[in-house]
Amino acid sequence: MTVPAIDLNADVGEGFGAWPPAADEQLIPLVSSANVACGFHASDPGLMRRTVRLAKAHGVAVGAHPSFPDRVGFGRRMLAASPREIEDDVVYQVGALLGCCRAEGVPLVHVKPHGALYAAASRDPAVARAIVAGVRGVDPSLWLVCLAGSVLAREGRAGGVRCVEEAFADRGYAPDGTLLPRGTPGALVTDPAAVAERVSRLAREGIVRAADGTQLHVVLGTICVHGDTPGAVDVARAIRARLDRDGVAVRPFAAAGAAPG
Amino acid sequence: MTVPAIDLNADVGEGFGAWPPAADEQLIPLVSSANVACGFHASDPGLMRRTVRLAKAHGVAVGAHPSFPDRVGFGRRMLAASPREIEDDVVYQVGALLGCCRAEGVPLVHVKPHGALYAAASRDPAVARAIVAGVRGVDPSLWLVCLAGSVLAREGRAGGVRCVEEAFADRGYAPDGTLLPRGTPGALVTDPAAVAERVSRLAREGIVRAADGTQLHVVLGTICVHGDTPGAVDVARAIRARLDRDGVAVRPFAAAGAAPG
Amino acid sequence: MTVPAIDLNADVGEGFGAWPPAADEQLIPLVSSANVACGFHASDPGLMRRTVRLAKAHGVAVGAHPSFPDRVGFGRRMLAASPREIEDDVVYQVGALLGCCRAEGVPLVHVKPHGALYAAASRDPAVARAIVAGVRGVDPSLWLVCLAGSVLAREGRAGGVRCVEEAFADRGYAPDGTLLPRGTPGALVTDPAAVAERVSRLAREGIVRAADGTQLHVVLGTICVHGDTPGAVDVARAIRARLDRDGVAVRPFAAAGAAPG
Amino acid sequence: MTVPAIDLNADVGEGFGAWPPAADEQLIPLVSSANVACGFHASDPGLMRRTVRLAKAHGVAVGAHPSFPDRVGFGRRMLAASPREIEDDVVYQVGALLGCCRAEGVPLVHVKPHGALYAAASRDPAVARAIVAGVRGVDPSLWLVCLAGSVLAREGRAGGVRCVEEAFADRGYAPDGTLLPRGTPGALVTDPAAVAERVSRLAREGIVRAADGTQLHVVLGTICVHGDTPGAVDVARAIRARLDRDGVAVRPFAAAGAAPG
Repeated sequence: MTVPAIDLNADVGEGFGAWPPAADEQLIPLVSSANVACGFHASDPGLMRRTVRLAKAHGVAVGAHPSFPDRVGFGRRMLAASPREIEDDVVYQVGALLGCCRAEGVPLVHVKPHGALYAAASRDPAVARAIVAGVRGVDPSLWLVCLAGSVLAREGRAGGVRCVEEAFADRGYAPDGTLLPRGTPGALVTDPAAVAERVSRLAREGIVRAADGTQLHVVLGTICVHGDTPGAVDVARAIRARLDRDGVAVRPFAAAGAAPG
Repeated sequence: MTVPAIDLNADVGEGFGAWPPAADEQLIPLVSSANVACGFHASDPGLMRRTVRLAKAHGVAVGAHPSFPDRVGFGRRMLAASPREIEDDVVYQVGALLGCCRAEGVPLVHVKPHGALYAAASRDPAVARAIVAGVRGVDPSLWLVCLAGSVLAREGRAGGVRCVEEAFADRGYAPDGTLLPRGTPGALVTDPAAVAERVSRLAREGIVRAADGTQLHVVLGTICVHGDTPGAVDVARAIRARLDRDGVAVRPFAAAGAAPG
Repeated sequence: MTVPAIDLNADVGEGFGAWPPAADEQLIPLVSSANVACGFHASDPGLMRRTVRLAKAHGVAVGAHPSFPDRVGFGRRMLAASPREIEDDVVYQVGALLGCCRAEGVPLVHVKPHGALYAAASRDPAVARAIVAGVRGVDPSLWLVCLAGSVLAREGRAGGVRCVEEAFADRGYAPDGTLLPRGTPGALVTDPAAVAERVSRLAREGIVRAADGTQLHVVLGTICVHGDTPGAVDVARAIRARLDRDGVAVRPFAAAGAAPG
Repeated sequence: MTVPAIDLNADVGEGFGAWPPAADEQLIPLVSSANVACGFHASDPGLMRRTVRLAKAHGVAVGAHPSFPDRVGFGRRMLAASPREIEDDVVYQVGALLGCCRAEGVPLVHVKPHGALYAAASRDPAVARAIVAGVRGVDPSLWLVCLAGSVLAREGRAGGVRCVEEAFADRGYAPDGTLLPRGTPGALVTDPAAVAERVSRLAREGIVRAADGTQLHVVLGTICVHGDTPGAVDVARAIRARLDRDGVAVRPFAAAGAAPG
């Protein structure tokens, strides 16, 4: 008999220089995978190492969180970079975090694109293939964390990279499985108990309810826990408490047995 | 009977974005080791990969050329960074180039600090130890290219890192083996034939003549060929022609059998 | 009787740190208006002041050449910045160049957006209005250099900013007055004599021939002379020689009597 | 009969992109002069304008707070920039803020160097003269805020710039009027009431007590209220309450009638 298990991932290390990340010290102990900013939208060499060290101390798997080069915009603005530029930017950032992981004696497990790069990769095959090429170039055994059902997941598999599909605990879904755009009614789920309930059901049954009530079946590898919203730590704590109560273990997706794509 | 052999190294990839490096296409085929800028004083992810590719095409060994973070100052200005910051900056930059090397299927062989960081590491034990810790953290089998007889060479060996001592073909030496400061009479040797003669003698006999005529014995691993001075390519060609004539092979220091420090 | 006169403008100061601009020393004496890069796609404080000084020495009018913040991409990549961000970026860059102009005792005359920002402003009213607001905010007497017939020219006038319409000497036009996209046959005119002939006719008659032979009437304030293409200086010299021969004076558009928009 | 008055200044706008400044909304209403970061150690064009707007809303005088170009180090690390580079960096930053002030309809009143640049200017005449030249270049009527009794105050006066001498409410003084180095016993005064008492006495009598009890007479133009320390807002509130009680008005130094140096 196996215990149901799920991976919770969070974007971390998203400070810069004198500006610390929001809540990493509270958040990292609550998740099982950490997506570490690599200096293009946030973080710096010192913070990257401290973040890797923090993840290591809590047994949390470390991944790279590369971005478009846009620190002042926090990587949230679409940039018309060429596929070649995107691939090279991914190689550089993943390599830089690999250096930090080696210096801390921690394996680099996965890559998850950030912000506007994540959004572009989810729908644009050229962007997706550029990221896949960059990840594979640095290390073909790295996992790629993708929006569930996205172009990136499809291109990752086609390109021979192991993909983990990601769902969002605090985002509303349309009946077709896409995320409701921010600003739409139901686009954000903010009540910690409601978010926790959704995570637990996703983990146990692979089901998330769309805004109109439709039950969506998700083949899931990991659930993203946001760290940069007010109350983020409270939400993460509610999720952990609910999963404990429901008998769901939280562990890195590789350990949790995510089937490679 | 062994053929005398020497390594020639050059700093390359020192362009940025729309600004190409000065003479890499001409220079790289003439040397045996390439110190590739890592984005902090020069270069960008795309240029780093193109530079690694160019080195690979000519069988030239690839090393990282990390710097203080000062692009507008080309890494030539001393920055009062802490040892911790220096170590982390080295880890980040060496890791980023390691990513590029992996993506191009090329081993990363060595690290040579750039500009003001090189100068500081040559005389300041705290800076030197920070660099040694960073290099060792990413990969303890990396070589460290050091000014011959410098504090960095001493600290590198004490820290268990393989060191290669470097001489300058176009710089004048004081009788005590230190470089004459720029601006001093004899500080720069500009005649290509004179530089070539010095390189050949260094390679064959391990001897360089100081400005006052003193013969200095140098235990040498590599000779730096500058690429950013006017006539740099002519100098490099003169050196190669002279070494050919004198029966000295040019090959990477690891292949040339540099004794680990 | 008045002598026909035209303004020639060029983008200058487009180096950075150790990387000098391509050909400013040759180009600036050949034009009458200089669009000075402001540090976001190229240039740095020292180069900005040297460029302003060079323009002053040759009696060339100084303008600001603001860009999206994208130095590694030379401002050529579209960035999804908000109108608010664009306005503030324009204010910052124009202000920074205003500081340089004051320090050199030179008036700041105009603003011309660079690269992807220029292209976006030519067709997108929201981008155009953001630029207009930024320019007006710093100094409502500044001129705004716009693609002839563009959305930016229209919005500039609507916003109360004096606009100067710009034609390109080396670019092919479609019969409707828009620029032929790069890559299209006839999109680039490279023969110096042909470019010079076009400039002279534009200056004397306000006419440019489209790729299909149609005569386009242009109400013109300035003609852009590119400085970053091979042979750019030769083209500029051919233009000046031709204009001299045809009795057309070259002088800043304000002096040349461009009618405010 | 005149009411005693003093200027309180604070460093503000010291966020960047997604990272907000610590406490500007609370702090700015409590001071009379705001030193606004200009993008080199902190801030960005949007934050600069919002900060100027906030100062304007509270009737607080706006000044520029230029720095060495070192965002990741928050401008706290000494950089071996040349006097020419320092002057040009000051011109660029002051000009950029001048642009923001014009866009908000606010006069730019003063300049106060930041961090390592402030420290270097306080003791190194070459650095001080470079800053003076930069300030004068942009606008000779700008005030320069200087450490009381510093080299910068002396060079500013010699260079024809109006200087305002600054004391620190929360720093201990040596008997010779210099600041006790951080880490020394008595170097930091942390009790809000004690800081407030010092400020009031400085404002009313021009006297501060050194760590050994010596009474130091200070010709004072402004008192710096730190904003980036824990409890900074509480300290500022305590100062204001005490000054109110003691009948000391808080207003910008120009209005308060600081004698030009």
